[in-house]
Amino acid sequence: MSYGRIKATQLIDKVTTADEAARLFEHGMVIGASGFTKAGDSKAVLDALARRAEKEELKITLMTGASLGHDTDAKLTRAGALAKRMPFQVDRVLREAINRGEVLFVDQHLSESAELLHNNCLPPVDIAVIEAAFIEADGSIVPTTSVGNSVTFAALAKRVIIEINTRVPEAIYGLHDIFQPDNYPHRNVIPIVAPENRIGRRSIPVDINKIAAIVFTDIQDSPADIAPPDAKTIAIAGHLLRFFEDEVKKGHLTDRLLPLQAGIGKVANAVLSGFKDSNFYDLRMFSEVLQDSTFDLLDSGKLSFASASSITLSADCYDRVFANLQKYKDRVVLRPQNISNTPGLIRRLGVIAINTAIEFDIYGNVNSTHIGGTNIMNGIGGSGDFARNAYLSIFVTQAASKDNRISHVLPMVSHVDHTEHDVDILVTDIGLADLRGLAPRERADRIIRNCVHPEYRESLRSYFDRACQLRGGHTPHMLEEAFSWHNRLRENGSMK
Amino acid sequence: MSYGRIKATQLIDKVTTADEAARLFEHGMVIGASGFTKAGDSKAVLDALARRAEKEELKITLMTGASLGHDTDAKLTRAGALAKRMPFQVDRVLREAINRGEVLFVDQHLSESAELLHNNCLPPVDIAVIEAAFIEADGSIVPTTSVGNSVTFAALAKRVIIEINTRVPEAIYGLHDIFQPDNYPHRNVIPIVAPENRIGRRSIPVDINKIAAIVFTDIQDSPADIAPPDAKTIAIAGHLLRFFEDEVKKGHLTDRLLPLQAGIGKVANAVLSGFKDSNFYDLRMFSEVLQDSTFDLLDSGKLSFASASSITLSADCYDRVFANLQKYKDRVVLRPQNISNTPGLIRRLGVIAINTAIEFDIYGNVNSTHIGGTNIMNGIGGSGDFARNAYLSIFVTQAASKDNRISHVLPMVSHVDHTEHDVDILVTDIGLADLRGLAPRERADRIIRNCVHPEYRESLRSYFDRACQLRGGHTPHMLEEAFSWHNRLRENGSMK
Ligand SMILES: CC(C)(COP(=O)(O)OP(=O)(O)OC[C@H]1O[C@@H](n2cnc3c(N)ncnc32)[C@H](O)[C@@H]1OP(=O)(O)O)[C@@H](O)C(=O)NCCC(=O)NCCS
Ligand SMILES: CC(C)(COP(=O)(O)OP(=O)(O)OC[C@H]1O[C@@H](n2cnc3c(N)ncnc32)[C@H](O)[C@@H]1OP(=O)(O)O)[C@@H](O)C(=O)NCCC(=O)NCCS
Repeated sequence: MSYGRIKATQLIDKVTTADEAARLFEHGMVIGASGFTKAGDSKAVLDALARRAEKEELKITLMTGASLGHDTDAKLTRAGALAKRMPFQVDRVLREAINRGEVLFVDQHLSESAELLHNNCLPPVDIAVIEAAFIEADGSIVPTTSVGNSVTFAALAKRVIIEINTRVPEAIYGLHDIFQPDNYPHRNVIPIVAPENRIGRRSIPVDINKIAAIVFTDIQDSPADIAPPDAKTIAIAGHLLRFFEDEVKKGHLTDRLLPLQAGIGKVANAVLSGFKDSNFYDLRMFSEVLQDSTFDLLDSGKLSFASASSITLSADCYDRVFANLQKYKDRVVLRPQNISNTPGLIRRLGVIAINTAIEFDIYGNVNSTHIGGTNIMNGIGGSGDFARNAYLSIFVTQAASKDNRISHVLPMVSHVDHTEHDVDILVTDIGLADLRGLAPRERADRIIRNCVHPEYRESLRSYFDRACQLRGGHTPHMLEEAFSWHNRLRENGSMK
Repeated sequence: MSYGRIKATQLIDKVTTADEAARLFEHGMVIGASGFTKAGDSKAVLDALARRAEKEELKITLMTGASLGHDTDAKLTRAGALAKRMPFQVDRVLREAINRGEVLFVDQHLSESAELLHNNCLPPVDIAVIEAAFIEADGSIVPTTSVGNSVTFAALAKRVIIEINTRVPEAIYGLHDIFQPDNYPHRNVIPIVAPENRIGRRSIPVDINKIAAIVFTDIQDSPADIAPPDAKTIAIAGHLLRFFEDEVKKGHLTDRLLPLQAGIGKVANAVLSGFKDSNFYDLRMFSEVLQDSTFDLLDSGKLSFASASSITLSADCYDRVFANLQKYKDRVVLRPQNISNTPGLIRRLGVIAINTAIEFDIYGNVNSTHIGGTNIMNGIGGSGDFARNAYLSIFVTQAASKDNRISHVLPMVSHVDHTEHDVDILVTDIGLADLRGLAPRERADRIIRNCVHPEYRESLRSYFDRACQLRGGHTPHMLEEAFSWHNRLRENGSMK
């Protein structure tokens, strides 16, 4: 054991095994755990909890930053340990249990869980489980590859379990900027005016008397598996980069653009990679998660600074970043997710937000979460925090998938996560639609012209034309036919 | 003429008639006009524009703060003067033209039009038309009963027409707090931490050389016609006040609550009136529009301060307020709508937002704008600015209307303005549903139990139960039946 990582030496007798620590959990408890896009999550204690729950009735509410790695959500689900889960997940096993109605899922904006906890709008947290690089002399926690909601969990939980991960070098100290707004009614300004501003401390404060157990691990974050760019994502990235170039030509933006946010996944990666060979320079990111592409851009000199709440890397990139932490620490900062994703900062900084949609409709409404209106995919994550308040709110998706049996551009989305009022730019591999300043009928025309897959263009045009003729209105729709494409897919396996 | 109201005496030769001023408009121009919820709007120049447009081809894009009074939108519509209108309207004649597809309408969050203009995301403003109480020596404009988007229009327009309204006393000077954030990428903090903070100047800066015409009027704002509380609005207000009392008992809020925002209309009025006989005290408003009820609450001592972008009063209350301006000026401030409605301040202050819905569904999605999914009613206004970022996001509506032929609680809303992620509390005359921390299936159960009209309860329960059985999912829906209630209303005149 690396007891040297416990600078508060009076805590050394709290060191125990994961199984022992997991005995602290009781049926019905609310657990707040670290972890955000598979980074900085609990690797041992939640795993031990799953094993316990296999043998006894032990159902909890689990809150995290965002998604967990190491199949932890799957293990907890299979063990029947999850009564309720929030605010985000990406696990196939958990997703299916949610969709069967077995696990209750609360799909929250990532900036809001901490708000709701602080405001007593959610049940109080019993136990926090937080991954740490080390514990400072005052008991405060130096986190690892994510901050997430850990500051809130540590502040509000009755007891705290710390997992010290010795795989993470102590040199990570200084990567994090830990700041929390005061509670209402005395909340103050968050004094960030640029992504690179540091306003807080380097570790997460915690009442040392609440630390109930310390567990050691040596397990790396689950690697991000990012599909390499393919023809579609390269086409999407191309449309988007040309759009940015045009905005610069028109004098709307400079070659430095404005701070970028990019969701995870291959499209975001393709877009960021596209910047490498562009004329843009001195770029900044103000995002929620940083992937390999961020570090490539930092290395290439195109990107000057990146702010987020987590770092999710491939195995190769993980090694590279941790071997060069000192170099990156000046140019990267990790913040609590209620800071990285807070509406006021996103508007103040003028973020350009790029997120992936499951589907969008002819009027610009976006579905980020549901398949067929009923089944959850992952959750809204931070897409709403950013899209709603961004300088530019961009959504990307492939025009069609599954041998073109599915069109992602539709008469009406089956679930709305981002409304027509919030969406500026839509992009598919077919093309880009700039919706700014357009009325709904103008938007429909442009989206049908620019974004829909050619195999669906005519029938989408026909829907719109008939809706205008038969019903008219500000937003012409035939409600009895609005979901006919989804219904056809359900019944016949194709939207055609 | 009260030339004394033009302290910049070099401008006196700009004084002209409304008809002369209206000659400045040209076909295809973009006009930015003052006016917000019928307050502080142009009374003469836009009227003259309508008269001109009756005789010649003259179509413009008209941007305002929000809605206009004096049937101006109707006159412009009838004259065929409107090509495009944004960001809000409440006029029956205009609404019908929009729904026939004759006028293009862009339904924007009220905080965003100024952003879009500053960021060159909308066509540039050719002429600003701004109502003023008087003009300062440096040419700057002292506005009247609203600020709206006038600061942005004055800054960006190529030419400015000022309507000096002598009906408004010069003593209004000091009511306004004129502040604008800097442009990207150098935007700074908006240093407001309480509704009563004043951070700007008292008049709207304008390049004196751009002032192209000055017109005098003496016409009062169109009076607000507020229906008196009835059984339904009293029931809604009762549910809401009991909810606030419970939150205080639970220690979630104090008797001072947090700053209140209330939409216009009779429900908001009934709620605010309800505070008069409550135990709450030292209340504050951080809202977009102030109605009679605000001044009643100020008089009763319950309300300490009110911040907004406009004041819309009945004729009686108007006289009372203007006879006592000095008294109210210390306790009321009017701000630009991109400050009153800005996301960051709404979250920073922890606003309790109360807005009216047209309909909501069993999962908590709210429609504020469309009838039957196609026809616009008014627009989203500021409801999204507030709901999305509020401490508590509350929507109210009657459970049923038109002899109960219409249910306002539905399987699925026909248009989404506020998503399930953004809505905390729903209230009808039947009861209140607190949705915080609930998964979709839990929300459905609570909404069906608490909010739906008894005549619709069973069939809404049946929809939900069958959706759970037949389709399951995180958000059970039968897409082929989701709009059946709307379809029945369209075909048979009743949702039953
Ligand atoms: C939207 C999101 C799921 C897209 O992720 P992705 O990996 O690019 O997903 P895809 O475009 O490949 O589509 C998802 C799947 O749904 C399927 N799908 C889409 N529409 C469908 C429909 N109407 N019916 C059935 N399946 C459908 C696709 O075919 C695809 O299937 P596959 O995975 O078997 O190929 C993901 O970005 C997400 O969860 N976003 C929300 C969170 C967020 O934005 N966070 C902010 C930043 S991290
Ligand atoms: C939502 C809004 C229209 C409600 O206003 P309201 O005057 O209370 O409206 P009502 O509840 O009486 O309902 C509106 C009408 O639509 C009708 N209606 C509602 N649902 C309907 C449906 N599915 N089909 C047909 N008609 C419907 C009602 O019967 C009612 O008709 P009536 O006016 O003939 O009685 C109004 O508050 C608004 O425009 N809000 C958006 C802007 C906003 O919130 N701004 C923020 C603060 S100012």
